Amino acid sequence: MMTALSDPRFTRAVSDDGSLATPFMKCLARLVRAQDSYGLWKDKCDAELLANFTVTEEQRRAIPIIGDPDPDVLLRLDLFYAAVGVAIEERSGLLISRTLEISDEGIGRVLFTTRRLVVLSKTLRDVHRFGFNTLGKCAKTGTKLIEDAIKSIEAYPDVARA
Amino acid sequence: MMTALSDPRFTRAVSDDGSLATPFMKCLARLVRAQDSYGLWKDKCDAELLANFTVTEEQRRAIPIIGDPDPDVLLRLDLFYAAVGVAIEERSGLLISRTLEISDEGIGRVLFTTRRLVVLSKTLRDVHRFGFNTLGKCAKTGTKLIEDAIKSIEAYPDVARA
Repeated sequence: MMTALSDPRFTRAVSDDGSLATPFMKCLARLVRAQDSYGLWKDKCDAELLANFTVTEEQRRAIPIIGDPDPDVLLRLDLFYAAVGVAIEERSGLLISRTLEISDEGIGRVLFTTRRLVVLSKTLRDVHRFGFNTLGKCAKTGTKLIEDAIKSIEAYPDVARA
Repeated sequence: MMTALSDPRFTRAVSDDGSLATPFMKCLARLVRAQDSYGLWKDKCDAELLANFTVTEEQRRAIPIIGDPDPDVLLRLDLFYAAVGVAIEERSGLLISRTLEISDEGIGRVLFTTRRLVVLSKTLRDVHRFGFNTLGKCAKTGTKLIEDAIKSIEAYPDVARA
């Protein structure tokens, strides 16, 4: 078994540390920690916990896209978009609902809504291979989604509160 | 094996024939016929095809709510809400997206959106036991959903076309 420090994903994750300080990544780390019912990850740092969100190109190619997506991947996908939703709530002060539909073929859609407004809508593809090249990329993707959502709330403030 | 005419669901279905003439039920019958790849149901009337959408109280009680919902029930649920979506498109002339999320416990949500507007949002419960007491009830429920959707499109015409 690999220790965390010898895991290449961990060292790669730690190398771009600036991204871990973004509000989105803090939110994601919090949600990952919420999965830790028995306190087994108490001594792990955020970079260590989030290392699983990174997938190298070689690893990605090795994941089969036939059959159901791996439950661990689905959990990470769920946590990622849950963190996006929570971060939008924090920034906007509005209650956000998330609806996630994924087919067995790894294609789907995630919708964030508040009252009558579609705050964010994203098509999901290649769910089997969900992951980011680096944690920096993960932070950037999440932050971009949140900013898009905030922009659409600002564009239709009355619909978001209808 | 029961013939269609001796099936109590069929005779009950035929008795309230007024509902089959509603635009929603015609749409639903069309979508059910679209499932008939080999033309086996060609000679069946709409009431016969839609009879499966009715479930009596006794039948409903007999369906277990433990375990995954029955695939046939999920198909009917899917067809029902697909028909709602198509009927909204016909009435409004807008393109409607549907997102359906159902958990293994038979709880979920269906969202109809167009551009930035949430046209219709419905919480689903007891998916295992999806069905209506009569076809009249089925027609009424579908028609009500469509009318709610049309109302919200009329309330926010600019968001629906944003």
